[in-house]
Amino acid sequence: MMAAQQNGLAIIAGRGDLPKLLAEECARRNEPYLVIGFGNAALKWAVDHPFETAQFEKAGALFDTIRNAGCTRVVFAGSMSRPSLNPLKYDWKFTKLAPRLLKSLGAGDDETLRTIASVFNEEGFEIIGADSILENLVAKRGIPSKRQPSEIDRTDANRAREIVTQLGQVDVGQGCVVANGICLALETIQGTDAMLDFVAQTAAPYRHNADAGVLFKAPKPHQDRRIDFPAIGTDTIHAAHRAGLNGVVVPDGGALIIDLQETVKIADELNLFLWIQGGDE
Amino acid sequence: MMAAQQNGLAIIAGRGDLPKLLAEECARRNEPYLVIGFGNAALKWAVDHPFETAQFEKAGALFDTIRNAGCTRVVFAGSMSRPSLNPLKYDWKFTKLAPRLLKSLGAGDDETLRTIASVFNEEGFEIIGADSILENLVAKRGIPSKRQPSEIDRTDANRAREIVTQLGQVDVGQGCVVANGICLALETIQGTDAMLDFVAQTAAPYRHNADAGVLFKAPKPHQDRRIDFPAIGTDTIHAAHRAGLNGVVVPDGGALIIDLQETVKIADELNLFLWIQGGDE
Repeated sequence: MMAAQQNGLAIIAGRGDLPKLLAEECARRNEPYLVIGFGNAALKWAVDHPFETAQFEKAGALFDTIRNAGCTRVVFAGSMSRPSLNPLKYDWKFTKLAPRLLKSLGAGDDETLRTIASVFNEEGFEIIGADSILENLVAKRGIPSKRQPSEIDRTDANRAREIVTQLGQVDVGQGCVVANGICLALETIQGTDAMLDFVAQTAAPYRHNADAGVLFKAPKPHQDRRIDFPAIGTDTIHAAHRAGLNGVVVPDGGALIIDLQETVKIADELNLFLWIQGGDE
Repeated sequence: MMAAQQNGLAIIAGRGDLPKLLAEECARRNEPYLVIGFGNAALKWAVDHPFETAQFEKAGALFDTIRNAGCTRVVFAGSMSRPSLNPLKYDWKFTKLAPRLLKSLGAGDDETLRTIASVFNEEGFEIIGADSILENLVAKRGIPSKRQPSEIDRTDANRAREIVTQLGQVDVGQGCVVANGICLALETIQGTDAMLDFVAQTAAPYRHNADAGVLFKAPKPHQDRRIDFPAIGTDTIHAAHRAGLNGVVVPDGGALIIDLQETVKIADELNLFLWIQGGDE
């Protein structure tokens, strides 16, 4: 039996458009790849691509599947809920890994992802960042929307950046909403949309100046960008609009923008700004 | 005209039971005092006490009212929403103070309170902490509930403490919820109850082990404890229960417990623990 081609890419696919974009890019480049979905995650788009499902508890089977498909590289893309693990389903490999993985679950998000990345490394796989494959999606400095941030928006964005940077030191969240200097929400495990829903429910006394508020999103300072790079897109703009915000800010080079053109179009339609902020701004 | 008695206490009354307890304590000690309510805040209990309403925009009138009642000391008690200020109503005093106050509004919660405290100081009033009057309400180390924290609860409490301490550096929040090491919510301007409601809405994937979760509440590290000391009580226990948590943790000496006996009783009924945590635990 011939060895399978040995430079394939396994796409560990979570929610959102990012895994689909990666799969499409691999197809376009005519490079070998395999999309992997977990449990009952809805991945309708995957029918157009080489696709396998996997279970967290069957780590041995997962590694075999990836190897058998000729994949030596792995990319994690899109958010994934923490699984409800059933110990009765553990295979031998997962049983061995479980103590380490479960311990990391208690130490924060980033630590969990770092542990998972180490496990893949030890199995001989190289971890690739989505941003290195989809370079053209990495946000580049500028304000491509028609609306431009006001002085208050700029002050709010800088306060939000300060808060997110601080919070990142304890491995929590990638995002925050600030309006008129007041922090209205901080991102926790439920993600950006849940945070923006919370803001949308925040009543008038805390938001007496209605025309204020920015969403800031950035990688955590010590984050392994290969495995959890922030991504925004049209959904983010819609959610920010529902939350009554003026705009969305990400740092230069610090986020993927899924379909920049469409994202700017929606921002313009809803009169929000999109600001890819340089470190010196 | 004789000078009014010059050691009275003005109780700037926000929400919750704390201002009422202060008024009752002053009445019990037979010391002069005056309860001050703002705008349309519901202070039904105040009919039993010397009471005046005030408006934020009429700062000059407010200071006169306090002075005329013979109050030289001021205590801020209970949370208050940020007011919707109407510049047409500003009196001369507020017009002078407005630039400074509005600037501090944009620099965070604590800064706003510090500025307000300075203004009262400059007017010749002494700011008193609620904890110095209601010393018996300051939480003292121990676990007075029947339920005791598990090892996981203890790990969660320490992670929560770490997060709140970090967040305090940027003057945000006094509370946080951690379950199985995962941060489920961080307190922002909307307060503890809104945070716990958010947690109550957090769906299963993020909380696969249902029997986990603590609310941690503490003063910010650089906070002026005289003007925003955390307080908990039966409401906090009820809200923590609705959020599916195991217990509530406050630091030794770091919070007022409004009616400890009743709070412990409710905690026991709902099978939550109440832990007043020493710094070395």
